[in-house]
Amino acid sequence: MEMSSLTQERKSAQFDVEAMKIVWEGSPEQVQLTQRIGQLVANDAVFRKDNRVSQGRLELFKNTLRKAAHAWSIIQSLHLTEAEASKLRSFIDEPAYTDLHWGMFIPAIKGQGTDEQQQKWLPLAYRQTIIGCYAQTELGHGSNVQGLETTATFDPSTDEFIVNTPTLTATKWWPGGLGKVSTHAIVYARLITDGKDYGVHAFIMQIRSLEDHHPLPGVIVADIGVKFGNGGYNTMDNGLLRFDNVRIPRDNLLMRVASVTRHGKYVPSGVPRQLGYGAMVFVRKSIVMDASNYLSRAVTIAVRYSAVRRQFGTQQGKPEIQVIDYMTQQSRLFPLLATAYAYRFLGVWMSWLYSDVMARLERGDFSTLPEVHACTAGLKSITTSTTADGIEECRKLCGGHGYLCASGLPELYAAYVPACTYEGDNVILLLQVARFLMKTLSLLGSGKKPSGTAAYLGNAADLLAKNCQVMKERDWINPDILQHAFEARSARLTVKCATQIAAASNQEAGFSEFSSELVDASRAHCELIVVTRFMEALKKEISGRSVMKQLQTLCYVYALSLVTARAGDFLVTGYLSSKQLDLAKGQLRSLFRELRPNAVALVDSFNHSDYYLGSTLGRFDGNVYENLYNDALKDPMNASPVTEGYEEYIRPVLKQQLKLPNSRL
Amino acid sequence: MEMSSLTQERKSAQFDVEAMKIVWEGSPEQVQLTQRIGQLVANDAVFRKDNRVSQGRLELFKNTLRKAAHAWSIIQSLHLTEAEASKLRSFIDEPAYTDLHWGMFIPAIKGQGTDEQQQKWLPLAYRQTIIGCYAQTELGHGSNVQGLETTATFDPSTDEFIVNTPTLTATKWWPGGLGKVSTHAIVYARLITDGKDYGVHAFIMQIRSLEDHHPLPGVIVADIGVKFGNGGYNTMDNGLLRFDNVRIPRDNLLMRVASVTRHGKYVPSGVPRQLGYGAMVFVRKSIVMDASNYLSRAVTIAVRYSAVRRQFGTQQGKPEIQVIDYMTQQSRLFPLLATAYAYRFLGVWMSWLYSDVMARLERGDFSTLPEVHACTAGLKSITTSTTADGIEECRKLCGGHGYLCASGLPELYAAYVPACTYEGDNVILLLQVARFLMKTLSLLGSGKKPSGTAAYLGNAADLLAKNCQVMKERDWINPDILQHAFEARSARLTVKCATQIAAASNQEAGFSEFSSELVDASRAHCELIVVTRFMEALKKEISGRSVMKQLQTLCYVYALSLVTARAGDFLVTGYLSSKQLDLAKGQLRSLFRELRPNAVALVDSFNHSDYYLGSTLGRFDGNVYENLYNDALKDPMNASPVTEGYEEYIRPVLKQQLKLPNSRL
Repeated sequence: MEMSSLTQERKSAQFDVEAMKIVWEGSPEQVQLTQRIGQLVANDAVFRKDNRVSQGRLELFKNTLRKAAHAWSIIQSLHLTEAEASKLRSFIDEPAYTDLHWGMFIPAIKGQGTDEQQQKWLPLAYRQTIIGCYAQTELGHGSNVQGLETTATFDPSTDEFIVNTPTLTATKWWPGGLGKVSTHAIVYARLITDGKDYGVHAFIMQIRSLEDHHPLPGVIVADIGVKFGNGGYNTMDNGLLRFDNVRIPRDNLLMRVASVTRHGKYVPSGVPRQLGYGAMVFVRKSIVMDASNYLSRAVTIAVRYSAVRRQFGTQQGKPEIQVIDYMTQQSRLFPLLATAYAYRFLGVWMSWLYSDVMARLERGDFSTLPEVHACTAGLKSITTSTTADGIEECRKLCGGHGYLCASGLPELYAAYVPACTYEGDNVILLLQVARFLMKTLSLLGSGKKPSGTAAYLGNAADLLAKNCQVMKERDWINPDILQHAFEARSARLTVKCATQIAAASNQEAGFSEFSSELVDASRAHCELIVVTRFMEALKKEISGRSVMKQLQTLCYVYALSLVTARAGDFLVTGYLSSKQLDLAKGQLRSLFRELRPNAVALVDSFNHSDYYLGSTLGRFDGNVYENLYNDALKDPMNASPVTEGYEEYIRPVLKQQLKLPNSRL
Repeated sequence: MEMSSLTQERKSAQFDVEAMKIVWEGSPEQVQLTQRIGQLVANDAVFRKDNRVSQGRLELFKNTLRKAAHAWSIIQSLHLTEAEASKLRSFIDEPAYTDLHWGMFIPAIKGQGTDEQQQKWLPLAYRQTIIGCYAQTELGHGSNVQGLETTATFDPSTDEFIVNTPTLTATKWWPGGLGKVSTHAIVYARLITDGKDYGVHAFIMQIRSLEDHHPLPGVIVADIGVKFGNGGYNTMDNGLLRFDNVRIPRDNLLMRVASVTRHGKYVPSGVPRQLGYGAMVFVRKSIVMDASNYLSRAVTIAVRYSAVRRQFGTQQGKPEIQVIDYMTQQSRLFPLLATAYAYRFLGVWMSWLYSDVMARLERGDFSTLPEVHACTAGLKSITTSTTADGIEECRKLCGGHGYLCASGLPELYAAYVPACTYEGDNVILLLQVARFLMKTLSLLGSGKKPSGTAAYLGNAADLLAKNCQVMKERDWINPDILQHAFEARSARLTVKCATQIAAASNQEAGFSEFSSELVDASRAHCELIVVTRFMEALKKEISGRSVMKQLQTLCYVYALSLVTARAGDFLVTGYLSSKQLDLAKGQLRSLFRELRPNAVALVDSFNHSDYYLGSTLGRFDGNVYENLYNDALKDPMNASPVTEGYEEYIRPVLKQQLKLPNSRL
């Protein structure tokens, strides 16, 4: 019965799923790679992940070490390329020290080390004869990097830096891979030489013996304990680290941007610090791609299960109604489906943005940096927040069974939600966007034209004057109308904030007082970017039967669901009338009806294997109940019909044979 | 340093905290009881809970059995009253089979059994010589209770019911305490006699042997597997249950409302079915009280930590700014603090409502039932959704460290969030409210006056005609203004839905098409009730220095934060102008400033012990960092400096001694 639900759904789809997979992955080769590496992982028993939620932390962690070693042996024996190896690690789908080694440690050496330093360290890292992590955050210092307390004081008498943790709050805290595995770390510390503090710099430091893995003298290193979720990040050894005046050679300072001479003179290299921004854009692009990936997994599970699950509405012995047919379900689920696609196109555009900014940086053109910095900061913020909330929403959309780990969603949420915090707290990032927006506005008077994603602010006068022109539902199905609406919303909120701040006693007080409003304006700016990128992407040719049609529907669902979700913004600025808002809602319902028969095929297009989803509710074959039932019977809790603990703790209760203590109240 | 933060905060508080504790708990005796039982649990090493997040499922579960047995021996040896025992169980703060035994199994027998049945079963249950659970939900049937498939067919030849699970989807699924512990269950099954299906009835059934605890013949019973969160509900043996034509005596049917004669005749007892609604009101009242309790715990942690945590804004070597001083923090945190108080007053009112409805039922007055049913359904829905989201928001407000289980918040969320699903899915409950609202409106024409929480709808004409009268910020500090605003919002959304539905092809199609809008209207109705109850409660005398003043501030914060959060509702109905909304925001910021110096004292007033909070971030003494650090070093992961798994999985990588498999791609 369950099986026929999804088969039926797939029959009713109106587009070419295989062509959509190519759009989603970017190329036929990528589709193939996913298939190939995905199967390699799924077919290898070492990578089994269904058992991890029952395990205690120690067992879980040890098993992750096993997977990492096994993956490395596969990578070596098959001579996988970097792209293939990275895909392999991502399909193993379990946070591990290798994420930091390959994703942060090596890139930091590449980005901040001199050529000589790279030649020294990279070969060791590539072979994993050393394993490294990235130790920046401290117990008392997260977002405020300039407030880090760890010191590295140059001692010219021995030509060494003395690295020290002066206070409790200076303890490095959180770095992944640090707690139990890494032999080395990129350590951020205040560079002090000749009595002067030059601010935070990166040093490469050995922390564990390469012989017996014991912490080196003067080094305290440990795991920081259990984190949110059954599996989640508990496979990762997030760590703490303290130094008691540990000495390292001078050239362990990563010196691409600045070095210290033998006699302790601090010498900037002339390489512009701004080059580091390129790496930041790259990381944020990856985060946005991850967002679309995670959200697409959650949506796949929720859409498939919503098509399998039936509730209410039985008539004359016929089956109940599929819950995906309820408007309350569609209005929460379909916008998330559309968002997964929207973020994918956004990520593709950010890849272009990265190349563009790198090309500019190399020719010394820093002009687009403020705009790119604000845009990518904001996009990191809104995509990760929306994705985290979206995963949890998908879990709720699966009803009670979504609470079972068998749904795959609890772990997905626990593993994803740190993205809202790492690489910049999402609220603080939006406040950075707000500063950029305020600055951009303030420069308009002096004739400076904003560019890139902020160009529309140059048109603020028109955006403030002209209200929405929609007269009937279908008018909303128009890129120009939507573009204008999102630009007007953002421009109006931004100008309003600027006006409010201008009226405050001083600018900083005003910025603080209206920071919630500023966050709203920043969000409006960022959502405009996503809508724009989605619409722009659809101006290019896209092949495959009716693929473009589906993407257009998704694009309008994305945009109009934002119009209705942010109705307050559009109404308060006087841009929309209540009537026009109702028309948007009406049009959105029509779009849901268009989307409905294609929903299952649209999540099939994400090309996620059953292994990767790790969800009984989201199985491709829809055979949900049988598998829930059979898997439950195999749970370790059911190894024997009478539970462990019966003799000690249940039977004495039932038989009134409990020993009563001499408690006193 | 950290310690001084909270000490300083407490010094700056402007009201009598001890008096506020009495308001929160309801009486000085309750404060005392909390203290007494709280300490009993906190001082008993068996109830230790800091280690549970590291444990695997089996170890965790066995430890819960141990705690339950130990608690039972204390209850017996100290001859605790029912109220004390219940408090003891709640302070142990760990979902367990006892929750269902005392909270569902016994009440079901009381509510649905005849006097004779109660005399037979209750003494056994009170002594726990039998342990019971409540088996309603099935694998394929949750919200739609009428769709349950389990059958109980009367066989007059033996005077027995034959209980059977006809399909896979008829498997009982989810009941707590069922999987590994219960000997008995209240089983919901379709009563069939003489070939006729009389719908779902409750039966009491033995499922495990009282001698050796093995499942009885024909019974399949097991645990359904791991659920969301490290600890969370994994201490509970949510179970599955199937019957293969199991025979039970006829009088195992709970017969208060209807019985079956020796010859198979179905006989209603004459006791009105509506009596069952009383139990429902009681359960929902308890859920709302739980919501205020859970939310208050999360808010305590987030407020204290926000006062300890400092970030940015260092000036001349002075400490950084406490994050609680940031407007972005206040605007998310203070409304939740106010909400915890709002829900407490709501719960108290619902206790009154319960007495009122019971008194009416006993004298055969069913007139208020539809209104009470809708009101309590809606309040269950909005309080649990807001609380679940609020706990997670508090976790995010604690930044990165909120993701550590040491914050106490991950477990709190995982343990709480099922409340959004059990006892009625929150969206479905709001749709029930919507049906009531539509019906109430439709009866207005025929002159039927709505009563109770829906009385304002009788005044709909005025509420639709008259817009908000606010002219300046302070105008918002006025119960009449707020009452009118919330009534107008709800009435206008409700009338709008009715109009839209009336224009649809038929009523059911309209109800379905506009179900999202109906949910919005229902939420407006319920939030009106909460605001009203909070304001009403403050019309009574409340003693203690400046306690009333604080509660008034909280009440206005609650109401105005809803006005701004739901700005779209107020704007789209034309009730508020943009200007008036800005005034509300301005007033809210002023209220935040009033609340700020009292924030820590206002969470101290919840009277939660450090043991109960289970949070290093939320410690009373504010000594956060030292304890995070010391606790981490004691984590089992740090038992040895070199991790388990080093020899097998790390050293071979570092030493290039991995055995490479013969993998093929």
